[in-house]
Amino acid sequence: MQVLATPKLRAPSIETVSIDLGERSYPIHIGQGLLGDPGSYDAVPRGSMAVIVSNATVAPLYAAALEAALKSRHRQVELVTLPDGEDHKDWTTLNLIFDRLLAVGADRKTVLYALGGGVVGDMTGFAAASFMRGVPFVQVPTTLLAQVDSSVGGKTGINHPRGKNMIGAFHQPLCVVADLDSLRSLPARELRAGLAEVIKYGPIADVPFLDWIEAHLDDLLAGDPAALRHAVRRSCEIKALVVGADERESGLRAILNFGHTFGHAIEAGLGYGVWLHGEAVGCGMAMAAALSSRLGLLAESDAQRLVRLIERAGLPVRGPALGADRYLALMRADKKAEAGEIRFVVLDGLGRAVLRGAPDDIVRQVLAQHGD
Amino acid sequence: MQVLATPKLRAPSIETVSIDLGERSYPIHIGQGLLGDPGSYDAVPRGSMAVIVSNATVAPLYAAALEAALKSRHRQVELVTLPDGEDHKDWTTLNLIFDRLLAVGADRKTVLYALGGGVVGDMTGFAAASFMRGVPFVQVPTTLLAQVDSSVGGKTGINHPRGKNMIGAFHQPLCVVADLDSLRSLPARELRAGLAEVIKYGPIADVPFLDWIEAHLDDLLAGDPAALRHAVRRSCEIKALVVGADERESGLRAILNFGHTFGHAIEAGLGYGVWLHGEAVGCGMAMAAALSSRLGLLAESDAQRLVRLIERAGLPVRGPALGADRYLALMRADKKAEAGEIRFVVLDGLGRAVLRGAPDDIVRQVLAQHGD
Repeated sequence: MQVLATPKLRAPSIETVSIDLGERSYPIHIGQGLLGDPGSYDAVPRGSMAVIVSNATVAPLYAAALEAALKSRHRQVELVTLPDGEDHKDWTTLNLIFDRLLAVGADRKTVLYALGGGVVGDMTGFAAASFMRGVPFVQVPTTLLAQVDSSVGGKTGINHPRGKNMIGAFHQPLCVVADLDSLRSLPARELRAGLAEVIKYGPIADVPFLDWIEAHLDDLLAGDPAALRHAVRRSCEIKALVVGADERESGLRAILNFGHTFGHAIEAGLGYGVWLHGEAVGCGMAMAAALSSRLGLLAESDAQRLVRLIERAGLPVRGPALGADRYLALMRADKKAEAGEIRFVVLDGLGRAVLRGAPDDIVRQVLAQHGD
Repeated sequence: MQVLATPKLRAPSIETVSIDLGERSYPIHIGQGLLGDPGSYDAVPRGSMAVIVSNATVAPLYAAALEAALKSRHRQVELVTLPDGEDHKDWTTLNLIFDRLLAVGADRKTVLYALGGGVVGDMTGFAAASFMRGVPFVQVPTTLLAQVDSSVGGKTGINHPRGKNMIGAFHQPLCVVADLDSLRSLPARELRAGLAEVIKYGPIADVPFLDWIEAHLDDLLAGDPAALRHAVRRSCEIKALVVGADERESGLRAILNFGHTFGHAIEAGLGYGVWLHGEAVGCGMAMAAALSSRLGLLAESDAQRLVRLIERAGLPVRGPALGADRYLALMRADKKAEAGEIRFVVLDGLGRAVLRGAPDDIVRQVLAQHGD
């Protein structure tokens, strides 16, 4: 007798990565069709008011679906739409959130939902940390960069003209809902910027993942759902391990800043929003790899391997011509600096990152090499 | 043989109240001559940069003494002078602190010192909570109000036009140094305002302390050092007990807000700085006592006893004519409100405070009684 294969109903495949922070632990749900599914938000208490914070680009695409999903959970759902872009990640824009919260009668139990990319997530998180000295919030990241990095780990904040993310708070969300479907609407430039943060996890912590990215980069660039799913999940797993071990960046967590010391200087030096954050990080990683090599920590061939991958991802590996003095001045304001000494995340071989200072003349050589 | 009594060197009498919050525990030192004594700051790690934040009134009086005391502990000591007054407790003024911190090269180990009254303490604390997502700070309160209330317990923040202290953080200091000598320079109006917060502790938690205040009010108003010392110490003891039991105001801590729901509405309604915070709280306590009585919780004679004490302290017991509708609208934005219902701290007999709602018509009667 022949057994007929019955067609399988594909259950929506959701993967959940847990971030372990004691009573502040929370789940990161990764999958397709999650954003509009009321079940994705089970970690949120019922009955309070919800305020969705989004931007002018993302709100028209996804706000209605999120509002519909939240209607059964919250007694009232409001939407605040911010201007889009890193150049709006400042106090003026943050105040739009506070103004609206007070206008609609938000209270200490009101839940904020960050619907958008890293800028929306960081600002909504800081608004949640500060409004009435702290209200709960949820991350609903719609960009690759936010799904693999900024929505996870509780770093929130705004920029200051002198430095990126200089004003902020550690404030963990109730949950993160990463809907892979939202990546379909992502412009190619934003996808590439997100890949910078994906690539990051390989050299700092996971060489097999680096190998996998090299092998699947074309799939990722083409938006292949299975490849993106693996990239998001593995990135979140690595980030969850690091943040679980060092929530407030007293040590280990700093490795997640690989490429960010140079990158933040590029962003602040050019003016926020000229380069995307991921573009600046991509170039910053190329510079940090070169620095690691010049410090004798990383084989030149490994540095070149990384630079080639960053280039293949369509990201810049040569920085803007700010001048080395300006780069150095901006980097001295970096949050990892101590007593004026810049501390770089460098690679001590592929798969291991360490924090250390570097002589100015070597940093200048790196900047010259990378197109200062 | 006759033993000659040797003249005793009077050791500087310092009293220390501990605030017990696990790893965030810290001491409150109370005494004379503390501000300029390097030993007062033993809880602060050595070697980092110090940034003193003060205002245009207090800095000329005490900044030099504090700077001198900190020279041996810190590698660099900077001073930021803000404009004075509650009307400057906003983002614009807060940004002056951030601008200066970045200009002088402050890092994550930089220690902020709040030298002044409640406004300086709340803003410095919020700047410390937010700068680079959190740096340590020390409270050096120079007003009675700050010594008995606002410098203790880690509530920090700024005002929003729609509500007092709406944006802020819980951020505990490394220590509090309450120098009683600084009260000598305090204008009489500020001393009276501070007495409002001293009086508060009696009816909410400690009837014998209420009796003591009634018996010693004239000494307190005259600035008698022994009376002030006792008032500061007992106030800090009560606040430490309450905050130690409920750091983030999930319950009990709200009792410290007795008089503040009405008081904050007065401050926001008149425009910040027209009445001093303590004046608004004094009047607010008279209103809250009347409300307690109308709700059948407090004997009318006890309410009158409290109102008489507030009046004797030279504080207002009749509110400004904002109109009952405006009072109610402002109070609905109060941080204790939930789903639009105002929750008042009322007295359930003298010495015991509880949180509860009240029908609008009874609140209107109270406002009419107290001069709306």
